[in-house]
Amino acid sequence: MLDKKTDLGDVTRLRVLDCLRNHGSLARKEIALDIGASPASVTAITAELLGAGLILERQLAPTSGSTARGRPRVMLNLNPEAFLVAGVKVARRSISVVICNFLGEDQSTQTIKLSQTRQSAKDLSRAVHAAIKSACELAQTGTGSLAGIAVGLAGQIDAPRNFVHWSSSLTENGLAFVSELQAAFPCPVFVENDANLVAKAEQLFGIGQSYENFLVVTVEHGVGLGIVIGGQLYRGKRGCGAEFGHTKVQLDGALCQCGQRGCLEAYIGEYALIREMSLGDPGTTVRTARDISALASSGDARACAVLDRAGQMFGIGLANLINIFDPDCLILSGAQSNLGHLFADPVLQRVAASTTDADGNLPPIFIGDLGDSIWAKGAAALAIEQVAASKVAAIRNPPH
Amino acid sequence: MLDKKTDLGDVTRLRVLDCLRNHGSLARKEIALDIGASPASVTAITAELLGAGLILERQLAPTSGSTARGRPRVMLNLNPEAFLVAGVKVARRSISVVICNFLGEDQSTQTIKLSQTRQSAKDLSRAVHAAIKSACELAQTGTGSLAGIAVGLAGQIDAPRNFVHWSSSLTENGLAFVSELQAAFPCPVFVENDANLVAKAEQLFGIGQSYENFLVVTVEHGVGLGIVIGGQLYRGKRGCGAEFGHTKVQLDGALCQCGQRGCLEAYIGEYALIREMSLGDPGTTVRTARDISALASSGDARACAVLDRAGQMFGIGLANLINIFDPDCLILSGAQSNLGHLFADPVLQRVAASTTDADGNLPPIFIGDLGDSIWAKGAAALAIEQVAASKVAAIRNPPH
Repeated sequence: MLDKKTDLGDVTRLRVLDCLRNHGSLARKEIALDIGASPASVTAITAELLGAGLILERQLAPTSGSTARGRPRVMLNLNPEAFLVAGVKVARRSISVVICNFLGEDQSTQTIKLSQTRQSAKDLSRAVHAAIKSACELAQTGTGSLAGIAVGLAGQIDAPRNFVHWSSSLTENGLAFVSELQAAFPCPVFVENDANLVAKAEQLFGIGQSYENFLVVTVEHGVGLGIVIGGQLYRGKRGCGAEFGHTKVQLDGALCQCGQRGCLEAYIGEYALIREMSLGDPGTTVRTARDISALASSGDARACAVLDRAGQMFGIGLANLINIFDPDCLILSGAQSNLGHLFADPVLQRVAASTTDADGNLPPIFIGDLGDSIWAKGAAALAIEQVAASKVAAIRNPPH
Repeated sequence: MLDKKTDLGDVTRLRVLDCLRNHGSLARKEIALDIGASPASVTAITAELLGAGLILERQLAPTSGSTARGRPRVMLNLNPEAFLVAGVKVARRSISVVICNFLGEDQSTQTIKLSQTRQSAKDLSRAVHAAIKSACELAQTGTGSLAGIAVGLAGQIDAPRNFVHWSSSLTENGLAFVSELQAAFPCPVFVENDANLVAKAEQLFGIGQSYENFLVVTVEHGVGLGIVIGGQLYRGKRGCGAEFGHTKVQLDGALCQCGQRGCLEAYIGEYALIREMSLGDPGTTVRTARDISALASSGDARACAVLDRAGQMFGIGLANLINIFDPDCLILSGAQSNLGHLFADPVLQRVAASTTDADGNLPPIFIGDLGDSIWAKGAAALAIEQVAASKVAAIRNPPH
């Protein structure tokens, strides 16, 4: 929001909206103090935002102890009804949708099954379309009432260009995935890497609300990373950054699904764990990370050894992130239920032992608690942010 | 400059200064277009900046083809004479100082030898003080004419707090190193990690001028990293970020000087190369990386093997940075002359082979060409930025 290309009036308008999102309800002079603008400028800008329907004004009756006796206090809030958005997460076997208002309050949620983990953009678009339609019906509204839609996919996504370099959910590479969805809906449609959306959800609704610079590591089928710096999602030049799972933790190490060697994912991904289990025991019945966890819990030495090494590798990977970013905090998010061994004490000990720590104040590592809906909620958060930015830009350049 | 705490008027004033630094000379309406502000706001702000002596106005005679015939064109520039700063780099065996004006033009440079690589804050402060004094004399000015001083040290520095967690140049840990210097000079004194200063130099005066998001990797005695995101130096919460040299490239790998195992520095640092050479040949006469390079050039198989592995490890380290940041570019800087093997083709091939590349457009890797003076020049760049920011803040809150 605050990069050098952003119009300075928009910067101020967006700061007012951020401020009200963080504080809930404030008087004009409190806003001015919080965002570092003059009271006159806040008066002008809040008038514009009221006119655009993005915020609401209400009068508090004066309290008996008030110094300005008899004068009502005028408070401002975000207008929950300003608009509706849909947030969509495409997972390997399902699509989840949440319909939210401007405050991020859920109006409905819907999950539909996918028969295939990978399909054409056309088929996936149809499935997403059906899921959104169904979620709108549950929310007793039409798709025409949506002001924006955001879709999260695993893979390399150039979000500002709405371009999918590749995704594990799609059979094609290098395409403007949203163009078919865009044709089906009157509102703008955005696409984003799913780990970035988890970071967005933590920023607007979760642990990240209190931090300017933080990292979110997701462990689902792959290993994802979302980077928030200066309160903004950092995406890299082509949306190809945050490839934490393919950072190398060993020169010419284990073969990864990506074809390279020594990637972190090649040691901690579910397929890597199963590969380890089947070495020397080709007849293993282990099919999932959860199976391996169960074996380890029952004392199976092989399963313990496999999970231990995966945990140690995950630990040095997280330490590498802390060494590079020294973030305000690091949030582990995603399907921890299946991968509890990656969130265990030996891993955190390895992180501490592998981090260059100057003062004994290592960044805290939190386990995100927004639940499985966090992926779709993050997509909704992105859509809310994008729609708000376009409504703010329209104040400056009213449509003809 | 553009974080959420910065006063919005200051944001606009600093954007005008940045714009004039990048473009040299512009008319007011060109500035307004470039920074996304209204012409009225640019007129008001440039009047303030002229009043503060930070910019100059000059009239261009109308050209015959001009549409506004007979009306002179009024151009604005940074005022080179606005103030002077000193940039200081403390290296292992020397201190370098450069005196610069607001444009970053060198007024004098001075280098003095250090008898010890590590000394007390008191002794080092005295040496820095003497070096600055001598550089001022060379520039035919007094130390009283300096508006700011910045000192670059290797180590973990919390720059916003002017606090040194530790530095390889100091015998003490955890101290406000600049307090003694601050007592000796009437102007503010800043301290910063030296790799961050190389990034600052590249941003203001070098390859980084054209990029918003870039990384600078320095290889001197240690391995440094400077991170520029959204046009700003990213320092981490405690100034403990950018510890690229201590990211782990092997679980429980080679022992590092820091006491941990598997750090990148433990494979590519000068001490690591010498350790490798002496394994199995305890009587080796090799003392420096340059010795090993010379041996490798003469075909010595052991030297070639040592440098080859170091290069491969450096390659996966750089690839990890690209995988995480997908930066606009990566700049290798520092004393390449001694460490040419780290900037060789096999290293770049390893980078390409270890990077997750969506579209065949890997970020370019440049070799910085600002020479050995870049470290002190970076310190000057930081001082210029800090002094300009305080002069801009004084426009809003004039001193009594």
